Amino acid sequence: MGSFTPTPRTTLRRLPKRGVFDRDAVFKILDEAFVCHVGFCDETGRPVVIPTAFGRDGERIYLHGSAASRMLRGLAGGLPVCVTVTLIDALVLARSAFHHSTNYRSVVILGEAVPVEDPDEKNEALRIIVDHLVPGRWAEARTPTPKELKATSVLALDLEEVSAKVRTGGPIDDEEDMSLVVWAGLIPLRQVAGEPLPEAGMAAAPEYVRNYRRPR
Amino acid sequence: MGSFTPTPRTTLRRLPKRGVFDRDAVFKILDEAFVCHVGFCDETGRPVVIPTAFGRDGERIYLHGSAASRMLRGLAGGLPVCVTVTLIDALVLARSAFHHSTNYRSVVILGEAVPVEDPDEKNEALRIIVDHLVPGRWAEARTPTPKELKATSVLALDLEEVSAKVRTGGPIDDEEDMSLVVWAGLIPLRQVAGEPLPEAGMAAAPEYVRNYRRPR
Repeated sequence: MGSFTPTPRTTLRRLPKRGVFDRDAVFKILDEAFVCHVGFCDETGRPVVIPTAFGRDGERIYLHGSAASRMLRGLAGGLPVCVTVTLIDALVLARSAFHHSTNYRSVVILGEAVPVEDPDEKNEALRIIVDHLVPGRWAEARTPTPKELKATSVLALDLEEVSAKVRTGGPIDDEEDMSLVVWAGLIPLRQVAGEPLPEAGMAAAPEYVRNYRRPR
Repeated sequence: MGSFTPTPRTTLRRLPKRGVFDRDAVFKILDEAFVCHVGFCDETGRPVVIPTAFGRDGERIYLHGSAASRMLRGLAGGLPVCVTVTLIDALVLARSAFHHSTNYRSVVILGEAVPVEDPDEKNEALRIIVDHLVPGRWAEARTPTPKELKATSVLALDLEEVSAKVRTGGPIDDEEDMSLVVWAGLIPLRQVAGEPLPEAGMAAAPEYVRNYRRPR
């Protein structure tokens, strides 16, 4: 699989040792997450950042495009976007306030998002998004009608200019702070699924609902 | 406290019934979250979205500004930003793929982020960020030296142009899909803290670490 090639925009200026460009590592972060934050610049050059669901298909992601759809009108090409995906693994409590941090895994994708217009590709993109959120779900749910496909705005973004940042491990304190009587360590954080809440009259929840968990 | 006044940019074009402008409701979302996604437009007019920690002080938030700091050079005023905060509460499984959704609470803050230069305000901003991440932590940790304050970039953003969106409740299916034999309901999601992981040689973790949880 190899690595993504750093570009001037994805070369990390700050804390470059946290940079990750390996494709498999990037894909794993994208596959564990299911919400991304899409940024674009509006007509007046001001930024807009919207959370949305996404799914990955090899070297491309698909995302709901409703919030950006008015920006796409009249554009011959795609819409310049920055899609950022963030997973938080722990709070990092150092002896000094200065060295407090978080353990996280984040991916930044730069590129031009293009609207998916072909109904077959749009249907497949929605399958990818739904099965990304809840693996196995597409096969059970009622699939979209042509009218529903038309009413849904989907964007595609190729994974070309991509970087990731990862912090792991405990706090790194300054030598002269090591003897301070201050508790230091990690508070691990994770997202967990609770008991499914069925609508009225449902049979037992399927296995992919009962044992829902993100891939790690 | 009242409400934030919708502006042309914060008036929701899509699903306006999900809009929330009540200040207390917005503050509660901001206080439960601790990571935001900061978007700005770079020199070439392209978007950049970076995750960072933040804290709230009344009608203002403070955030780490390292990633945006090169953008601030040479700016007389502030940097136009969009700061978005998102909490995910559940996956919403409808009978039709089309009506799948998530229950979420998100806040979008538009404005101009300004660098905090005054050492006393910067120290207070860091206290707010650290105590926002881990309430009670600032009182125990070793506070910043003048040199550390200088090495830290902090941005302030006033809460003036603010909107929130909230989805709650079960799936909303079309009438003609209600008899389909498809499991429908919610998969609740929440972020939980695990057992603290102390550095070597630590005494028992303090109460604010052992019983860590976000306010709700």
